Amino acid sequence: MVRPGTAARVGAVVSVPSVLDLLGVAVFAVSGALVAVRSQLDVFGVTVLAGVTAIGGGVVRDVLLGITPPTTLRQWPYLIVPAVVGLVVWRFHPAVARLRRAMLIADALGLALFATTGTAVALAAGAPAVTAVLVGVTTGVGGGVLRDVLLREVPLVLRREVYAVAASLGAVIVVAGDSLGLPTTPVLVLAALSVAVVRILALWRRWNIPLTRS
Amino acid sequence: MVRPGTAARVGAVVSVPSVLDLLGVAVFAVSGALVAVRSQLDVFGVTVLAGVTAIGGGVVRDVLLGITPPTTLRQWPYLIVPAVVGLVVWRFHPAVARLRRAMLIADALGLALFATTGTAVALAAGAPAVTAVLVGVTTGVGGGVLRDVLLREVPLVLRREVYAVAASLGAVIVVAGDSLGLPTTPVLVLAALSVAVVRILALWRRWNIPLTRS
Amino acid sequence: MVRPGTAARVGAVVSVPSVLDLLGVAVFAVSGALVAVRSQLDVFGVTVLAGVTAIGGGVVRDVLLGITPPTTLRQWPYLIVPAVVGLVVWRFHPAVARLRRAMLIADALGLALFATTGTAVALAAGAPAVTAVLVGVTTGVGGGVLRDVLLREVPLVLRREVYAVAASLGAVIVVAGDSLGLPTTPVLVLAALSVAVVRILALWRRWNIPLTRS
Repeated sequence: MVRPGTAARVGAVVSVPSVLDLLGVAVFAVSGALVAVRSQLDVFGVTVLAGVTAIGGGVVRDVLLGITPPTTLRQWPYLIVPAVVGLVVWRFHPAVARLRRAMLIADALGLALFATTGTAVALAAGAPAVTAVLVGVTTGVGGGVLRDVLLREVPLVLRREVYAVAASLGAVIVVAGDSLGLPTTPVLVLAALSVAVVRILALWRRWNIPLTRS
Repeated sequence: MVRPGTAARVGAVVSVPSVLDLLGVAVFAVSGALVAVRSQLDVFGVTVLAGVTAIGGGVVRDVLLGITPPTTLRQWPYLIVPAVVGLVVWRFHPAVARLRRAMLIADALGLALFATTGTAVALAAGAPAVTAVLVGVTTGVGGGVLRDVLLREVPLVLRREVYAVAASLGAVIVVAGDSLGLPTTPVLVLAALSVAVVRILALWRRWNIPLTRS
Repeated sequence: MVRPGTAARVGAVVSVPSVLDLLGVAVFAVSGALVAVRSQLDVFGVTVLAGVTAIGGGVVRDVLLGITPPTTLRQWPYLIVPAVVGLVVWRFHPAVARLRRAMLIADALGLALFATTGTAVALAAGAPAVTAVLVGVTTGVGGGVLRDVLLREVPLVLRREVYAVAASLGAVIVVAGDSLGLPTTPVLVLAALSVAVVRILALWRRWNIPLTRS
């Protein structure tokens, strides 16, 4: 299912945003660790949940694309960053929890980075457009879904806020740029910015999708 | 792990029941959307849950068989049908919810189609008999399990009704027909009818497996 | 991603501990079945949960490594053992439940066997050290996580006891032995014993990781 030269192309796409990617990992790790602290987990559970939230989306992405073992299970930084974040949050969580607004903004940036790079990795692996969009959105929201399922909450992405819609927007921009033959890096940056802006505006202006009629 | 020519054989097996397959997708999408409406999800959550319930079993099937990216993530109809169903159910759900009996019968047909075609796809991918049965049953029940886990319910298949037993019957019929060299299409139809009849009889006559002794 | 000759090497590694491996399957099946009985599932649900708990970790391991269809879905003993265990536990569960202490010790042995053989299978499939450790720990704890998620409990591994730490110790010993070129079987036995001893000592002396500060 994977075109020749996939590994090299995947590598090129992944290496470009690698610093931002690790920033996304760190941000999602903070989110997972804070939720774990609130659920009364111990330091080990907090660290595990930080890691699952941070790299879960990437693992699901690679399993769906047949990239095994998943990239995020093969590189030390993807593991060390969540571990350090988990320990720091566990130790200082009253201070960290007070940074809720900063964390939501950072979370929006993480969603933006993961949804767009996830789409790019899928395209580089030879996936068609529709697959790339779905895989990109899954990469963006996957870690949070695993976090919520493990802690017995209905996943945030299924609830009220404009979350997966923002991720879908970014994925569609990446696919459109690819099919128009535009250069990759500016398209990725534009897509990520779009996701982040929509998500942050939704938080700021309390945008909601219309609720179920009761 | 996959025999030469697998892609062609999988294609042949999958194309035969493709209309019925999409009917199964639609029916499972209705089931997922109705449960989401009852759980107070918004229109986006309802649509997502319709999609997860409808194509979840097929995605798990393909990941287990190493068919990546999964077939159901590569074809537009598999995505458009659940999206439309989700929107329609969300808009008209009081009327749809009143069709509960029709929905349970349709759900039985969906289980029947997915369990039998799932088994056939596994055989076509070169899986041995035991694997094909397990993969077929997983395809039939997988979407419902994901739906229930995301909404924090104990999966229906683990609870009282004759559900996975009916799916297993259909999978065994497909494997037996394959090992006897019988023609594929009649065997698939017979297997699907068997699942549907057993499941509908179980609903109608309230068949149950003996409960845990209390 | 997989080196030439992987299948043969995986086969060699897996065959060595196959009796102990099936003992681990049986022990985890007992654990899953007992939890299912307590959750009022019927005989079918008890058997399914016994199977999911017993082979879930191995299925996740093989999906992460790209070994498809997963080994545990291809061999009858991996299915017959949990089925028989599920039926026996369902029939005699008051007696089995009284054996709680024996079961916890057996569970420690199962964790020990699965974490170490999981690591060895990952190394044989060509995974780098960090991947092998993660895959090994996942193999050890995976079945229990699936069991708890399906029954709507926060996974035991995220809660207080020294569980995944013991599994990590065993995985690190296997990787260290491999990188030092030591013979496989004695290293596996030493690693498994280390996991079991740490886990049983933790149960016996009520070792806990420091709780979240409240």
